[in-house]
Amino acid sequence: MTLRSDIEAVNSGARTAAAWLEQSLGCTSADEGLNCLTAVFADEAREAAQTVDLAPCGQVLAGVPFVAKDLFDIAGRTTMAGSILNAEHAPAGADATAVARLKAAGAVLVGLANMDEYAYGFSTENHHLGPTRNPHDPTRIAGGSSGGSAAAVAAGMVPISLGSDTNGSIRVPASLCGIFGLKPTFGRLSRAGTFPFVASLDHIGPFARCVDDIALVYDVLQGSDPFDPACVDRPSDLAGTLDRSIGRTFKVGLLDGWFRQGATTDALAAVEKVATAFANLRSANWAGAEVARSSAFCMTAIEGASFHFSRLSRQAASFDPAVRDRLLAGALMPAHLGQQVRRVRRSMIQEVDRLFRDFDLLIAPATPCSAPRIGEATIEIDGVEVPVRANLGIYTQPVSFVGLPALASPVDLPGMPIGVQLIAAPWNERVLLQAAAWLEDRGILASRPCPVPEA
Amino acid sequence: MTLRSDIEAVNSGARTAAAWLEQSLGCTSADEGLNCLTAVFADEAREAAQTVDLAPCGQVLAGVPFVAKDLFDIAGRTTMAGSILNAEHAPAGADATAVARLKAAGAVLVGLANMDEYAYGFSTENHHLGPTRNPHDPTRIAGGSSGGSAAAVAAGMVPISLGSDTNGSIRVPASLCGIFGLKPTFGRLSRAGTFPFVASLDHIGPFARCVDDIALVYDVLQGSDPFDPACVDRPSDLAGTLDRSIGRTFKVGLLDGWFRQGATTDALAAVEKVATAFANLRSANWAGAEVARSSAFCMTAIEGASFHFSRLSRQAASFDPAVRDRLLAGALMPAHLGQQVRRVRRSMIQEVDRLFRDFDLLIAPATPCSAPRIGEATIEIDGVEVPVRANLGIYTQPVSFVGLPALASPVDLPGMPIGVQLIAAPWNERVLLQAAAWLEDRGILASRPCPVPEA
Repeated sequence: MTLRSDIEAVNSGARTAAAWLEQSLGCTSADEGLNCLTAVFADEAREAAQTVDLAPCGQVLAGVPFVAKDLFDIAGRTTMAGSILNAEHAPAGADATAVARLKAAGAVLVGLANMDEYAYGFSTENHHLGPTRNPHDPTRIAGGSSGGSAAAVAAGMVPISLGSDTNGSIRVPASLCGIFGLKPTFGRLSRAGTFPFVASLDHIGPFARCVDDIALVYDVLQGSDPFDPACVDRPSDLAGTLDRSIGRTFKVGLLDGWFRQGATTDALAAVEKVATAFANLRSANWAGAEVARSSAFCMTAIEGASFHFSRLSRQAASFDPAVRDRLLAGALMPAHLGQQVRRVRRSMIQEVDRLFRDFDLLIAPATPCSAPRIGEATIEIDGVEVPVRANLGIYTQPVSFVGLPALASPVDLPGMPIGVQLIAAPWNERVLLQAAAWLEDRGILASRPCPVPEA
Repeated sequence: MTLRSDIEAVNSGARTAAAWLEQSLGCTSADEGLNCLTAVFADEAREAAQTVDLAPCGQVLAGVPFVAKDLFDIAGRTTMAGSILNAEHAPAGADATAVARLKAAGAVLVGLANMDEYAYGFSTENHHLGPTRNPHDPTRIAGGSSGGSAAAVAAGMVPISLGSDTNGSIRVPASLCGIFGLKPTFGRLSRAGTFPFVASLDHIGPFARCVDDIALVYDVLQGSDPFDPACVDRPSDLAGTLDRSIGRTFKVGLLDGWFRQGATTDALAAVEKVATAFANLRSANWAGAEVARSSAFCMTAIEGASFHFSRLSRQAASFDPAVRDRLLAGALMPAHLGQQVRRVRRSMIQEVDRLFRDFDLLIAPATPCSAPRIGEATIEIDGVEVPVRANLGIYTQPVSFVGLPALASPVDLPGMPIGVQLIAAPWNERVLLQAAAWLEDRGILASRPCPVPEA
């Protein structure tokens, strides 16, 4: 069921990493139908698998094939970040820290995954490379901006992948593709060697099909890194095995107000199914959530525009039009707004701290709806037509704005997949994984197998 | 010569704090001529002096009279910060940390000192309260924004005082009034309970007449404080007595480029006199100084405008016109500029770090000229007429922008006073004080006695 048995098989010689990789490469050859990947490194991957097979040494991720969002540096390759503008950049000198850590644990990099240009979007309808399609219904989006990474796991091409999340870019595609996606506490995992978007809000994290797998990968990714100044030096919070029964005892808060208005019946049903599994459940109010969301919106536009300012000034026509317009808007915002959103964040972090005096875990929808159709420009939220690209993250944005760890988790319900966010206090990723394991064992959370459709 | 003998006299009972205070209060009664003070607390001060006399217990600052810039909270009093807008604020609940620490060491608060409105200026020509006059020539300004604190020490009203420095507001008036003024490393001294201006740049620090006194006060002010998040928990750097001879051995850099252009012959003569005292002297180039100064200028306008935004929106007419115009300009700056100056600061801190691989101490003018006349709107810098208020700090702004500790020190030269900045690597205040002590012992640095003129 979990990756551990496959890894054990590789480590014991019962199965080869090479065979596992060929199976993965077989799936990627059918990628044309989904457009998850922007690059496949078959030769390098075969070499890496062979190395694992030649000297099996009990590596934690021995032979596990994975892909990374196309904003993680790969040594010798120019990091594109979904843009054509980056083509003029020099090749990366080294792998991103996260990629290097997975490789060092025996994982095998199969390729890179499609994304919204410069990670600014929730749909992975990349203007230059085309949309990534949802494996559960190829007429629908996979969500974004880490859509390729999520769809590749959902389609079974690879069991794990890496994404990044600034406002919901891991949690939104995890929800729409029906898999697990972890956005850890701000500062927990090193972003070194990833192409930035909003330094104050950027996170990286893994996707996987079950709780045990995501815990396994997350643990390998942990550890401080001098090359990401935001990355905090803390001991791993997963020492020992995951307690799969303690989740039952958690004091759980069901977020109300902002986190319910605008949600479709699908999203509400998912949240309901998860929440009612807990005996110790109360309603939880985060009064500032809407302000947090607006502030995240402005901080993203302002910092994103500033980061891309010289490119916008010189090469505006080469941007994805949807990204360009939002960045230009950010460039025109007054400086006062930039100051104000930082102040909002500081006070909001305190408000949320108080909330965790009463609760171990908070529950909210991951997305307001399941996957919209490709090309659909708007979705209806509370009777108002709003742009898809900007609004799939209304429930994820407040959470990342204050840096809380959150696990987007697939709820076992009929129809297109939809997920919930399990949210914990800063540095309490363990709580998320314990809660999710307990729900998984009860059949409440589950990702569904979804073979790659014929191209 | 130094305060230590006076303090010893109080602690041994040879002199009373009460008598010392009366001498100080006698001087303040002549304040009308200089307009240093905005409040005198005669009753409370007499009570405090009596407490010291009743139970002498070897306090470090037993009986030392002092004043604080009128932006330090005093329990039970509304903190005006040189503005009429603050009159509607509630009285402070407690003394500012710095004031509380001086009081706890036995110092006696005599009153509060005049300043530029909201600390935005280098002249202490307060629109509402009138200008503070320079004790060395009452037709001239004392410098600002901590002009009242500097003039009160220069005039002998009190031996020590507290000021704040965002862009040079301690160092400029120290230079123009001919006394010592210490701006410590950013994060060294707690700003808790001071009315803010630019949180990213605000510092507090002491004024005094000699090196030993400023070291004494600085040491009492040290120590972390949970109420100022920027205040770093570091051990005191003045354990033991001050080595007054080691300064001779320092590798000294005379800052060139930006730090020489625009300086009057007076300012250059002061720097020359100090620099040539060192055997191990070389020219030092800080290429980014001008950019640092521009960036400090923008950061100040942006953060200051944001902090005062609601007051500007509702009560613009109640501001000092000179302050209002600069804040409004800040409110109109684009957010990108706010981001950019933060990036500049990060890279500039690294540039300056490299400079201190070669030098223990840097020397620069404190001000481009000695005190301009009151009401003079412009000064000439490099043949260009520029506003007094904004340009007296051209040499101090780069230094505070990157948070370096700097001691403005009076040079023994004829004519109106003018000072130099001794500048050290972060957290190396000790180096400044050692260098200054060595120069003082050689008669190169000296504040001149300057009795309060008749009102």
